Amino acid sequence: MKHLYVVGLGPGGAEFMTGQAIQALSRAEVLCGYTVYIDLVRPLFPEKEVFTTPMTQELERCRRALELAQQGKTVAMVCSGDAGVYGMAGPILQMAPEFPDVEIEVVSGVSAALSGAAVLGAPLMHDFCVISLSDLLTPWEVIENRLECAAKGDFSICLYNPSSKKRAGYLARACEILLAHRSPQTVCGWVKNIGREGQESKVLSLEELKGETLDMFTTVFIGASSTQDICGRMVTPRGYERK
Amino acid sequence: MKHLYVVGLGPGGAEFMTGQAIQALSRAEVLCGYTVYIDLVRPLFPEKEVFTTPMTQELERCRRALELAQQGKTVAMVCSGDAGVYGMAGPILQMAPEFPDVEIEVVSGVSAALSGAAVLGAPLMHDFCVISLSDLLTPWEVIENRLECAAKGDFSICLYNPSSKKRAGYLARACEILLAHRSPQTVCGWVKNIGREGQESKVLSLEELKGETLDMFTTVFIGASSTQDICGRMVTPRGYERK
Repeated sequence: MKHLYVVGLGPGGAEFMTGQAIQALSRAEVLCGYTVYIDLVRPLFPEKEVFTTPMTQELERCRRALELAQQGKTVAMVCSGDAGVYGMAGPILQMAPEFPDVEIEVVSGVSAALSGAAVLGAPLMHDFCVISLSDLLTPWEVIENRLECAAKGDFSICLYNPSSKKRAGYLARACEILLAHRSPQTVCGWVKNIGREGQESKVLSLEELKGETLDMFTTVFIGASSTQDICGRMVTPRGYERK
Repeated sequence: MKHLYVVGLGPGGAEFMTGQAIQALSRAEVLCGYTVYIDLVRPLFPEKEVFTTPMTQELERCRRALELAQQGKTVAMVCSGDAGVYGMAGPILQMAPEFPDVEIEVVSGVSAALSGAAVLGAPLMHDFCVISLSDLLTPWEVIENRLECAAKGDFSICLYNPSSKKRAGYLARACEILLAHRSPQTVCGWVKNIGREGQESKVLSLEELKGETLDMFTTVFIGASSTQDICGRMVTPRGYERK
């Protein structure tokens, strides 16, 4: 059987990968992925054949990985974080019916929501939402409605892609929507370059978050109404103390 | 410095642990946790001292771990999945101010939302919510409101703790709330014993899900309106095809 692994690498360094992910990469003859992610794993497997494509060519990358597998190579498509959260597992499975001989295995990894949360404390300890602010693939009205619903549900919220050069001001707009439902003092946080060189993080209020200028390598966390700043850590209680 | 690691093990077997998690357990002199989770890691570290407590004694377990660290032992508190998603990172950080000499490090792992999603396909490829149906710690009205908001936001939804002996019928009530906003044909799925012996999974409609009897070792996934059943896999498109 021809085999294609879709592998989540976790946030960055090899220490964040699962044993299952390392095994999948070891078995693969070809590693496919976005150039930046391939560079993360290349030092571990310097002898492997690689196929890289730039950021915006996701579908071409997926098709090429499936074609290589179809030709009989064992292939691993690498993704940062988890393969199934804004990763390549989706588009590959959507194309799968065209490649019926290729067995596809999704290997999960630690997503930025989880690794970023660990840096800040425990902001996602209770029910939470994950929302991407990128409107490259999703109409802004859909994103706005989800922010509104997440705010009304008093979820902790993790925001991916808080901004980019073309989307300056999106984080401020998101904060505006949330401020209609939550206190300006709501405990928030952000983590930049999670698990990589130059990791930085900050715990701050929703009001302060609105004024921050963050880049696309930053993951943002917005607390629920119950979220606390405990000695500089962002913690959402689950409610054990009420038992 | 006295050190306490709060470590997410992932779904079960050692192959799902990150290198960082294995290193934390290796460094620890005492492993603390719920009996079932300690049994998962004990074969890897048969020589280590362990401290286990039953399911419901979470706060006692956390306090004991902090006390052991305070006394100078390097301690690892183990959690299944991710330490920060319905895990022990929250209660430990809430007690942390009483133990100022203990340095606490949260080590994230692959949560059931991510590992279960990988088994089913890619149901969480776009924005999603994670909601626990357990009302042991959360009033049912809060859970119901979150289900309602998640439905209105057209999020993919991952449900933890879909039922238990005392909470039969909760999953059906949750499905009822979602059916007010989503088609009975909405693609759903569940995974039982993720990454452990006896793993089972099923892709089914929301209408069918309503009639299922599932246990507390099962994680449930409810698709967004765009989620598809592609050759038996549950896939939520992100929208690359619209570019």
